[in-house]
Amino acid sequence: MTATNKTPVTVIGLGSMGHTLASTFLKAGHPLTVWNRTPEKADDLVAAGAARAATPAEAAAASPLVIVCLVDHAVTRESLASAGKAFADRVLVNLTNSTPDQAREIAAWAGENGVTYVDGGIMATPPLIGGPASFLLYSGDREAFDAHRDALAVLGTPHFMGEDPGAAALYDLALLSGMYGMAAGVAHARALVTAHAGPAKAQEFSQTMLLSWIQAMLSVFAGMDAAKMADESPLDMQAPALVNILEASDAEGVPPMLAAHLLSMMKEIVDAGFTDVLPPVIDDLVGRLG
Amino acid sequence: MTATNKTPVTVIGLGSMGHTLASTFLKAGHPLTVWNRTPEKADDLVAAGAARAATPAEAAAASPLVIVCLVDHAVTRESLASAGKAFADRVLVNLTNSTPDQAREIAAWAGENGVTYVDGGIMATPPLIGGPASFLLYSGDREAFDAHRDALAVLGTPHFMGEDPGAAALYDLALLSGMYGMAAGVAHARALVTAHAGPAKAQEFSQTMLLSWIQAMLSVFAGMDAAKMADESPLDMQAPALVNILEASDAEGVPPMLAAHLLSMMKEIVDAGFTDVLPPVIDDLVGRLG
Ligand SMILES: NC(=O)c1ccc[n+]([C@@H]2O[C@H](COP(=O)([O-])OP(=O)(O)OC[C@H]3O[C@@H](n4cnc5c(N)ncnc54)[C@H](OP(=O)(O)O)[C@@H]3O)[C@@H](O)[C@H]2O)c1
Ligand SMILES: NC(=O)c1ccc[n+]([C@@H]2O[C@H](COP(=O)([O-])OP(=O)(O)OC[C@H]3O[C@@H](n4cnc5c(N)ncnc54)[C@H](OP(=O)(O)O)[C@@H]3O)[C@@H](O)[C@H]2O)c1
Repeated sequence: MTATNKTPVTVIGLGSMGHTLASTFLKAGHPLTVWNRTPEKADDLVAAGAARAATPAEAAAASPLVIVCLVDHAVTRESLASAGKAFADRVLVNLTNSTPDQAREIAAWAGENGVTYVDGGIMATPPLIGGPASFLLYSGDREAFDAHRDALAVLGTPHFMGEDPGAAALYDLALLSGMYGMAAGVAHARALVTAHAGPAKAQEFSQTMLLSWIQAMLSVFAGMDAAKMADESPLDMQAPALVNILEASDAEGVPPMLAAHLLSMMKEIVDAGFTDVLPPVIDDLVGRLG
Repeated sequence: MTATNKTPVTVIGLGSMGHTLASTFLKAGHPLTVWNRTPEKADDLVAAGAARAATPAEAAAASPLVIVCLVDHAVTRESLASAGKAFADRVLVNLTNSTPDQAREIAAWAGENGVTYVDGGIMATPPLIGGPASFLLYSGDREAFDAHRDALAVLGTPHFMGEDPGAAALYDLALLSGMYGMAAGVAHARALVTAHAGPAKAQEFSQTMLLSWIQAMLSVFAGMDAAKMADESPLDMQAPALVNILEASDAEGVPPMLAAHLLSMMKEIVDAGFTDVLPPVIDDLVGRLG
């Protein structure tokens, strides 16, 4: 490893996202230590100069700035707890997707264990990380965030959302819910055109007309004044259009409403074995899809 | 009225959209005749030079190009039927939102009554009509479309989708379903931030971060190769994020899923008195929202 004045960074969790974060730090010249449950996922990083830690504790001890990016809150909490006091005096930046309450819970654990805590949310897919469209939300310890802003900026534009450690998670989930709604709409639109004209035509439609239409409507809805909107596009005009979507979808053999699409996403999740993570009401709705 | 070489146009239906279409034709210099059930909605157009027809038949007789923009298919069919043979030899462009099958039904009626039929869909809100973001889809009689392309272009960019009169409706409804999904996502995101930080903050968030995030993700999803996507953003990573949206929404007092939002849209429609236009399954789902 060559000498560098860049902050040494540890990345815990080398899934699809964690691995991308790690390689981005490495390419930016940060000394890097990594840990992953399945150690082989670090092989290429080690070949490129990273150090492989045997445990989360060893990983945390190696760098002043420790990034965690694991599959969920429960796994994150376990990994932290298993590391005992190894995180003391570290700045812990947790980029695992979590709820505001989960973030606050880890902040409380950090407070009790001498750890400086910054919670975060990644607003990018792995291929976008480090590029101009990537941004990340942070909240919690402002001083630690400011001290490490430059290092964090290699992943994407950093935004500090407030000292409440739950703030980043709240905005992250709001943005994700916006994305899932859009994605369900895109899926439904593509399904209709696929049924009518085949997948090649649907792909072309999706990348041209659908893209520019949703972009135009996005500006309308994002800037929307609800009262003005109701006047220009009255509900008694929208009701028939919604019914027409249902009827046309049905005629084309496409599940007949957006809600059904959102629910099919849920159904996929259930089919993938996550039955018990879903609240009963969803489970119940999913059941109706057969 | 001054002399003009522009095609005389009739607009039947002066609701929020029809009135905008009419005034756009008038401003572009087309001799204009209008009809609306509530005649006063034509007052400003008549003051600006339009002719007011007493019946749909009189309106249709006045111009070679007749645009219909009414609340729904049933009202459109009635208005056409009530006009008897007045539409014969006219080019009828029906911009009322309809299903492909409804468009084909009107095309069949047109064929039996000597009417040249073009079905259409308006991909714009009234304030966008005539501007660069406005586009309209057409299908049916290609020759009639080509002959009137210039007149139609004053409303927005015209796209001919095929000679099947149902094609424009199919693509229109696909685009609308994409929009409604996006709108539900935006509504949910705004609700979360409103609950957390108040409406002013939510409005600012919506016009900045949410807008640019959905724009970036829209390019990802619209160009999506489903297999590649599953690899980069695995389902077992997405399941916890969806559950986090549900939990955080619940904690903030926001109805806990996008589906619930879509369903609340439906519920509004039911509350507005449209109970019987909704298929039973939706009615049933709506019931669960209380
Ligand atoms: N991918 C994206 O598009 C994206 C975008 C924004 C945010 N994120 C967030 O980034 C975080 C990670 O996502 P990802 O895409 O990297 O997920 P992933 O590819 O599924 O990786 C999951 C990670 O968690 C580890 N893990 C799972 N169960 C474990 C256990 N019981 N003990 C220890 N480690 C365990 C996995 O280790 P193994 O390798 O041993 O299985 C792997 O490192 C999530 O919170 C996600 O919401 C992802
Ligand atoms: N507004 C938009 O943002 C928008 C965007 C794209 C497409 N469109 C489509 O444009 C079409 C018209 O929408 P709009 O926004 O103009 O709706 P609107 O403001 O609700 O106007 C409805 C029109 O239908 C007429 N009407 C209703 N019931 C009737 C009946 N029984 N007999 C005769 N006329 C009747 C109304 O006449 P009265 O004035 O007498 O009530 C009015 O002219 C719809 O198909 C809609 O999907 C609208």
